[in-house]
Amino acid sequence: MGNYAKIANTGKQRVVIIGGGFAGVELAKSLQDADLQVVLIDKQNYHTFQPLLYQVATAGLEADSIIHPFRKIFLKQKNFYFRLAEVERVDTALQVVETSIGLIKYDYLMIATGATSNFFGDPQMEKHAIAMKSIDDALEIRNTILYNFEKSLQLDDEEQRNSLMDYVIVGGGPTGVELAGALSELRKHVFPKDYSELDFREMDIHLIQSGPLLLKGMSAEASAKALEYLERFGVKVWLNKRVKSYDGYTVLLDSGEKIITRTLFWAAGVTGAPIAGIRPESVLRGNRLQVDVFNRVVGYSNVFAIGDIAAMVTEENPQGHPMLAQPALQQGKLLGKNLMRLRAGEALLPFDYNDNGAMATIGRNHAVADLKLFKKEYKSQGFFAWFIWMFVHLVSIVGFRNKLEVMVDWVWAYFTYDTGNRLIVGKKHLNHPVEKTIISKTVE
Amino acid sequence: MGNYAKIANTGKQRVVIIGGGFAGVELAKSLQDADLQVVLIDKQNYHTFQPLLYQVATAGLEADSIIHPFRKIFLKQKNFYFRLAEVERVDTALQVVETSIGLIKYDYLMIATGATSNFFGDPQMEKHAIAMKSIDDALEIRNTILYNFEKSLQLDDEEQRNSLMDYVIVGGGPTGVELAGALSELRKHVFPKDYSELDFREMDIHLIQSGPLLLKGMSAEASAKALEYLERFGVKVWLNKRVKSYDGYTVLLDSGEKIITRTLFWAAGVTGAPIAGIRPESVLRGNRLQVDVFNRVVGYSNVFAIGDIAAMVTEENPQGHPMLAQPALQQGKLLGKNLMRLRAGEALLPFDYNDNGAMATIGRNHAVADLKLFKKEYKSQGFFAWFIWMFVHLVSIVGFRNKLEVMVDWVWAYFTYDTGNRLIVGKKHLNHPVEKTIISKTVE
Repeated sequence: MGNYAKIANTGKQRVVIIGGGFAGVELAKSLQDADLQVVLIDKQNYHTFQPLLYQVATAGLEADSIIHPFRKIFLKQKNFYFRLAEVERVDTALQVVETSIGLIKYDYLMIATGATSNFFGDPQMEKHAIAMKSIDDALEIRNTILYNFEKSLQLDDEEQRNSLMDYVIVGGGPTGVELAGALSELRKHVFPKDYSELDFREMDIHLIQSGPLLLKGMSAEASAKALEYLERFGVKVWLNKRVKSYDGYTVLLDSGEKIITRTLFWAAGVTGAPIAGIRPESVLRGNRLQVDVFNRVVGYSNVFAIGDIAAMVTEENPQGHPMLAQPALQQGKLLGKNLMRLRAGEALLPFDYNDNGAMATIGRNHAVADLKLFKKEYKSQGFFAWFIWMFVHLVSIVGFRNKLEVMVDWVWAYFTYDTGNRLIVGKKHLNHPVEKTIISKTVE
Repeated sequence: MGNYAKIANTGKQRVVIIGGGFAGVELAKSLQDADLQVVLIDKQNYHTFQPLLYQVATAGLEADSIIHPFRKIFLKQKNFYFRLAEVERVDTALQVVETSIGLIKYDYLMIATGATSNFFGDPQMEKHAIAMKSIDDALEIRNTILYNFEKSLQLDDEEQRNSLMDYVIVGGGPTGVELAGALSELRKHVFPKDYSELDFREMDIHLIQSGPLLLKGMSAEASAKALEYLERFGVKVWLNKRVKSYDGYTVLLDSGEKIITRTLFWAAGVTGAPIAGIRPESVLRGNRLQVDVFNRVVGYSNVFAIGDIAAMVTEENPQGHPMLAQPALQQGKLLGKNLMRLRAGEALLPFDYNDNGAMATIGRNHAVADLKLFKKEYKSQGFFAWFIWMFVHLVSIVGFRNKLEVMVDWVWAYFTYDTGNRLIVGKKHLNHPVEKTIISKTVE
């Protein structure tokens, strides 16, 4: 056993929250008046507003606008302590978390580690596909897209050029649909101006969905309209197709078709990101932790899980709740309340998911929304849904300054048909692996 | 010889500009109506507004606000071509530039490669000191500062903690003075709120200047006031001291004093960044290229140099012009005009530097300015100078959107005493080398 990380001993019981996503932040906030020491551990020093990551990836928003440093969020919360660290494992017998900065003792452990991309055990796909789970991923995607065009300028061979200009998105859920919409928007309004030397009729955007419907889980109207919008914007939607393999150049579909691209975005599924040290009996399929209706991990008295990592298996929800922001926020909030009840000897309140519906945007002026308000359902597609989508995301993003920045960026983009600064960050892209691959491909 | 890079043959003579700093961009702009093909080569896809880099480094501005992609700047210039590439060397006999994307032929070669940090041949300093020449450097500095505090939280040993909390800036020119001022501002208004677990009386900011005056080259009043302001803000200014050595931990001064710090900023001098293939007789001390009064590199008929890399040695300027934005902008503009005159068979106009003065800001409400307007000199220190400084920088920054962003950030910071998002970008800082050094130091 190593040394203990240095955290003031305040004489209070200590709640350790692993992960500062929607669930972890909401939980920490809801404990602001608790007579406890709240320690949040994250490997980034900021919270990320994940629903808008795809806009950072497509240069629509600046990275800084959708993140909020934890220390800023909790500036006024006296019982809050942040530690920038990576968690290695937990020891539930000794009640310690082993981290990159040392051991951290806990009285209550709150696991809010979220989800990670699920490549369904395909190592080749994992190696070549691009996922979008973090700001770093989003910036990497932005770099890749911009660099691909710079590189395309140098190629005479049509297949080689197309391999850089064409994009394949796997997964027709909200992320895949929104990314496809944003790319088609850029193809129409932004890229042709920046790269007048390229012919953007050559740029293809493919969206591959294994089932018959886009936005599975939303209404039939929403699915149908999303498909209609995407096709209107020139996205090639492949329904009922699965990707069999991808070697970084050729996408092979189960139906035999091949698509050539150097850029495949993986939005086809996520899996829980559990931590070592939790008893295997509590880890369900999909790597999620089985919790009771109070979000307590089955088999423990003082270990809880919330958000994407938690699977609250009930008759209504045999798979647990959807891995989305809403259940995470609601579970985080309730768990804070329940922890205080627990310590006061009061009965715990079971979690009751209040589903407010779902929505997705597909380029300028177009979105689909299935809303549930006061137990009534409202369906909307088109301009009004798009407006609602913007409003909901604006009010949800953390921090007034971020709201302002996002709004200014959106208004700017709307009226100028231009997006934010399209800069390639970092030096490595000058010697991007793509270049070497191209050379070897050409030689073959 | 390798292959040629792919650039359309427009049938026009080709001007190749290497480097998109102030000089290169201004030159390309001034050639917008020329019957020439203008090719700009840069290793970034954006222009950087260098005078505000220190604000990015100190989290005062977002990186995106002070850069502008070349393709956006030249969106409407038909004869302009951008290529993202690294220049390896030039062959002036064959009239080609050898780059990472292939050979590029030129009729006129314009060298605008700027300057790089001068460590005066001290490899240990070069290894351990942090320079600030690019957006990547600035972000690296921001990361380092924020990470240092996260790390300090874990240390009991006072010397170890101070090595992370203290900063040494070498060089009392505008960059050093402005960086010291910005750091003292953060120490006063921002860091103590974010890191309430740390005692910021422990944080020392040292500014080391080899000569007796700060802001050498400015008026005696400006130098004196800059010193007064910095000392008022608690910066420890060391005049007439030189750094003898720095091993990443101990700064040894020539007078024998030692300062412990893991973060030393190098702002003590720059040197030209010449390219291979230029005849050595034209490379002067300080690695600058000797040019005549038309910015033509001595010994060539069709090779020119502008900005920091150019040394126009005259009786008035035995060292060439100061390595600043103003001479670069003015030389770039005049060279564009002269190139058109040259091709029209007209006499070239000699460069006549119009010195508008200099200024530096030292934290909120404080700046020093020596202005020259219509041949008259105006000196100002304090709030008015600070206001002028802001105005001049706002109007100088490229792009309306950037102006707007910078202004919003400044106004926000002014009234809230808060700065932009303080995020640590990238993953590497979790396993920052600092950590390893600390461990080894502790063991010693």
